[in-house]
This record gives sequence, structure tokens and C-alpha cells, in this order.
Amino acid sequence: MEEFQRLSRDLIAHGAIIDYYQDTIMVPNGNIAKWDFIKHNGAAAVVPVDDEGRLIMVKQFRNALDRYTLEIPAGGLQSPEEPTRTAAARELSEETGYTSDHLELLLSIRTTVAFCNEKIDIYVADHLVPGSQHLDEDEFVQIFAYSVEELTEMIYSGQIQDSKTVAAILAYKDKYLK
Amino acid sequence: MEEFQRLSRDLIAHGAIIDYYQDTIMVPNGNIAKWDFIKHNGAAAVVPVDDEGRLIMVKQFRNALDRYTLEIPAGGLQSPEEPTRTAAARELSEETGYTSDHLELLLSIRTTVAFCNEKIDIYVADHLVPGSQHLDEDEFVQIFAYSVEELTEMIYSGQIQDSKTVAAILAYKDKYLK
Repeated sequence: MEEFQRLSRDLIAHGAIIDYYQDTIMVPNGNIAKWDFIKHNGAAAVVPVDDEGRLIMVKQFRNALDRYTLEIPAGGLQSPEEPTRTAAARELSEETGYTSDHLELLLSIRTTVAFCNEKIDIYVADHLVPGSQHLDEDEFVQIFAYSVEELTEMIYSGQIQDSKTVAAILAYKDKYLK
Repeated sequence: MEEFQRLSRDLIAHGAIIDYYQDTIMVPNGNIAKWDFIKHNGAAAVVPVDDEGRLIMVKQFRNALDRYTLEIPAGGLQSPEEPTRTAAARELSEETGYTSDHLELLLSIRTTVAFCNEKIDIYVADHLVPGSQHLDEDEFVQIFAYSVEELTEMIYSGQIQDSKTVAAILAYKDKYLK
């Protein structure tokens, strides 16, 4: 396989949840290219399954899309070293109020590999215990429960597009419901 | 639903395939927050299905992950107005050499909604006609064909993590193979 060589990685901007770098790369034919690199600490997400087999979803405003989205509960790691299972359990509790001692890793995704290192570990949680939301100061989240079939239809109709949510629902269906 | 208000959107850095903005947001409780926004033109991807039912995958170096990845063929739109079907057909031809007149929209994803507007429309292509790769100057891509079952195992083992590829394989399996 040909070799790519990174000649430099320069921090251009330090953001709230990401850092933006400009990389200088020598590609295999010897050309020099400038590539974007967005550094992200990583995140965790969870597919909460209630006792009726419905999945607990959160609706929230997404500034990047200028609209509300329906997603599985998720959030960034508090540090790159935080175990994703800990983060998944925390986000489940914060965003939905439910807690669970039964978290199983479903799959890991890289959201957008062309320019970003963000990794999301996605867990399945069942045996949910009800409680109350305790959101961060800037979080405003509504909770809904849907069947997997309803959610699958929302994926194909375009109502659900968030990549971690699409991957999580389809993987849960593939692995647990066939 | 509570109201979020964007007070400003300031361009911080103009990148190769993205632009980095800092947004100032008034959240519903009146607090002011600084949020990252990465603007992306959008992309198209394609699940190429050969006459044996195998999917054509591309292996390429991903600087953001410092490693090679196995993905479905994909690429950015040449302009925000380019039809994604056109882009999907072009990337299929450029990266794999195959062409197809049979492209059907499978689903659309938003890669990472917390900070980026990137949308990827994912098509299924069959009746593939062989040809030769014609890559961009900085592209170096190898081609492989795998069964859907092999690819599903690679998702759960972590060998395939790219979100568009995970979503595409699982959606193709859910929609076409059950």
C-alpha cells in the first residue's frame, strides 16, 4: 500500500467541543495537499429498550441543522479517558431519567472519517429504572418511546437521519430482532 | 417547544472541504452559549451490488483516523446544488470503475448533528457495468467485494466503523434481504 506522510498539523481554532487543524500531507505521488482535521474527544450513545420493547428517543434542537431532531440519548465524553460505558449510563440518566445496570456494547461508529476523528460507542440498555431528567444548563430535551418498526419507517422517510441513531436502530434490529 | 435564537455566526476558518464557524446562541433560559458549527457542502455515497449479491467496497487511507478504512464509495458534492444522484454515479465510476444506470435512493444521513450540517444521500446501484478507475490526483483506492454477511460481521467486530458505511450496509440488509 502506498504511503501517506503528514508533514505538519497546525491548530487553527480551539472550539467549544472540537478543535480545527490544518494538516499538510504528502500523498503517495509526492504532491503536497492541505487537509482539514477536526479533533473530537469522542462520545457515547445508548439504545434504551423499555419493558414493552420500545426504544426511548430524545427530541432536541440542533443548531447545525436549524431544526429539532429525534435521536438516541448521547453525549460527549467528559475527557478522552472517560470510559464510554460510564458516559453512556450518564447520558441515559441525564437525558431520559432512566437508569440501567444492563449496558451492552452494540457497535462503534466514526461519524465522518473524511475530516474528523469522532468515535461514538453505542450501547444497548434494558431493565430500565424510571427516574427524573437532570439536564445540563443548556440542554432542553423531550422524551418519546417508539417501536423499532416505527423508527425504521422514520429512517426511510427521512424523519430520522442522525447517523448514530440510524446505525443504532438498524444494528439493534439486525442483532436482537431477527 | 422552547425557542433557541442564533445571535451571530462568525466564520473563523475557511478549510479545504469545510468551513469552521463560531455561533452565539441564546438558549431558552436566556443564557448565551458559544457553539461550534462546521459547514459542509454535502456528499453522496453508493452501495454497489454485483451480480453475485456482493457489495463493492473501497479501502483508502484516512488521515483523520491515521489508518486505512473499508467504506462504500462516496464523495463530496462538487457544489451544494449538484444532484446527489449525479455525484453518487460519478463516485461509483471514479472509485470503482463500475457504472450503473440503476441507482435508487436508500436513505439520507446527517453525519454528526451536534456541530456539523453534513448530509449524505446513500444510493443502491446494481446492474453494474465494469470499467476502469479514474481517481482524483490525490486519491488512492483499492477495491474489494464482500457478502453482506461478511460486512455485517465486520461492523460488530469493529473492522468497519464509518457511519455512512454502517448505515448503508444495515439499511440495505434490512430493506432488500429480509
